[in-house]
Amino acid sequence: MPLIPPHSTIGILGGGQLGRMLALAAAELGYKVHIFAPEADSPAADVAADFTCAPYEDIAALERFAAAVDVATYEFENIPTATVRHLAAMIPVFPDADALEITQDRLREKDFVSAAGARTTAYAAVDSAADAVAAAERLGLPLVLKTRRFGYDGKGQRIVRDNSEIAPAVTALGDVNLIAEAFVAFEREVSVVIARGQDGAMAAYPLVENRHEHHILAETIAPAEASPRLAACADQVARAVAGKLRYVGVLAVEMFVLGEEVLVNELAPRVHNSGHWTIDACAVSQFENHIRAICGLPLGSPAPHSRAVMQNLLGDDIGRYAEFLAEPNARFHDYGKREARAGRKMGHVTRLYPLS
Amino acid sequence: MPLIPPHSTIGILGGGQLGRMLALAAAELGYKVHIFAPEADSPAADVAADFTCAPYEDIAALERFAAAVDVATYEFENIPTATVRHLAAMIPVFPDADALEITQDRLREKDFVSAAGARTTAYAAVDSAADAVAAAERLGLPLVLKTRRFGYDGKGQRIVRDNSEIAPAVTALGDVNLIAEAFVAFEREVSVVIARGQDGAMAAYPLVENRHEHHILAETIAPAEASPRLAACADQVARAVAGKLRYVGVLAVEMFVLGEEVLVNELAPRVHNSGHWTIDACAVSQFENHIRAICGLPLGSPAPHSRAVMQNLLGDDIGRYAEFLAEPNARFHDYGKREARAGRKMGHVTRLYPLS
Repeated sequence: MPLIPPHSTIGILGGGQLGRMLALAAAELGYKVHIFAPEADSPAADVAADFTCAPYEDIAALERFAAAVDVATYEFENIPTATVRHLAAMIPVFPDADALEITQDRLREKDFVSAAGARTTAYAAVDSAADAVAAAERLGLPLVLKTRRFGYDGKGQRIVRDNSEIAPAVTALGDVNLIAEAFVAFEREVSVVIARGQDGAMAAYPLVENRHEHHILAETIAPAEASPRLAACADQVARAVAGKLRYVGVLAVEMFVLGEEVLVNELAPRVHNSGHWTIDACAVSQFENHIRAICGLPLGSPAPHSRAVMQNLLGDDIGRYAEFLAEPNARFHDYGKREARAGRKMGHVTRLYPLS
Repeated sequence: MPLIPPHSTIGILGGGQLGRMLALAAAELGYKVHIFAPEADSPAADVAADFTCAPYEDIAALERFAAAVDVATYEFENIPTATVRHLAAMIPVFPDADALEITQDRLREKDFVSAAGARTTAYAAVDSAADAVAAAERLGLPLVLKTRRFGYDGKGQRIVRDNSEIAPAVTALGDVNLIAEAFVAFEREVSVVIARGQDGAMAAYPLVENRHEHHILAETIAPAEASPRLAACADQVARAVAGKLRYVGVLAVEMFVLGEEVLVNELAPRVHNSGHWTIDACAVSQFENHIRAICGLPLGSPAPHSRAVMQNLLGDDIGRYAEFLAEPNARFHDYGKREARAGRKMGHVTRLYPLS
């Protein structure tokens, strides 16, 4: 259990907005930050003391990075596990490569969640059109076909509504290493963001509701409207998963709500968009708690002092900054990205309301 | 009235903790920051995209800096006014050189505050021991002798209690360019931190009480216990001074309390230690409001959501981080300074309490 005291250097793999917000939280605690990312235009690098711009597979660059930092973490789950394992042989890395490996693969992730005692949608491995047809028989139609790896924001998935769509969908997704999931007519999507320390202590933020548009998170409502039983059930699921993973850092557990039950949809082994509201509405944000967890410091309280609605600003939305800044209860965040491409997450606004 | 939109670059003269906290606030709004400071060990540079390490008198470095930034400000009132005037000929600089010039000189500052209709302690210019003797006759003993320029944290001042101490004190302070101030048996020291925008709009934080130890701020209590009349009076003084200065940015007005009256002690043309509590207890901090003001953006609400007590961490205090992090209502800030010299401001803790 390494203690990484303030004034140490934290290495972060990935240079996007999550890395940027982690770097800002680390700076408040007196840490130096070193960003490692392949993209020259990495907004996290603008707020970090050091920046290594190199591919994740560049062993020499990774070795120099390891020599320059005291602990490493990542802001992005599609980092190659080989990169993390290589670093972990030299310095502490949290979350560990096993957590990354499990959450990079939808099939292993669902097996793991089930083994932790939590429910998921019904699923089956698919490595051929025949597998998919068998899955459709067992799980029913419509069926969701997904790549096991590297999907995000709705990429790498198809919904098939009848048998004739199965073969083309399997081909479009690359034929092998797929997963079929039963289509769930869920009521709402919710998530729990939970921090787990090196010592096993956990701090879970309240259950939040997430509204998506075009498969991209549009809005998070914190806390979610939920019965105490539902909220407690979701909290227990997050604790069970984080505990079984022996996870260190912040983990996001995305779930579907079905009545008073939750089904785990996906794990994200990192700080998460549905936790951005914690910057403005909680004593200690998800970003600060991630830094505290990986550095072996006591976790901070996840209790909110306000209710919050977080709205993502995509593409040109960011140009409306003056409007957001003029709203008295709005907190505006701009990630400093140079190019406002359509659909790109450029910033967010958190609107605060009194806790009722 | 230049509008400096997010994604522009803000230049900051000075690389200490105030520059660091300004840089963090600027980053949240999507700005890039470029620090200019003579000290290689500048904690603000660790969170900035660019750093020019050069003396404030280095004209070539200033010109390169001006070419690289869209607006400039400073975190430190002892920047040479010539530096600010030189920059201001090339780019917008806020607060302007006039504000800096007035607040760098205790005599001009007191003349200015008086002209703004606010009270100060009684004072007189002193350029010789004879002047000081005359001042002692007029203002009484004990008398406070100070250098007109470059004093801070109690440096550059002497209290003389009888006539025999006058000549040695004048000599010790450099003989000329001094000011004599009547000794005030004040009850409490308070301050108002106020932001004023390019358009003249103002946002004043509530009156706070400041407790000093060995002439260094130890603790700020926010808001101060004060009658509505006293609080309104202090607020009016701050508005009058900021207005008359046609000030742009955050200004701190330090005052003594005498019954239901305030006497202005000192102005600081910058974000101020007595405003650090606003990071954790207000919707918009003094740092963000300074950035908003100099960039021509709408000011944010200075209303607190919590009461707060801010404690400075000097020297080795910073080593107690684990203790502060474990307090549920404490927010810990470490400035990332490499060397914890005795008396050096290394960080602060803000403890939050419900608004009563």
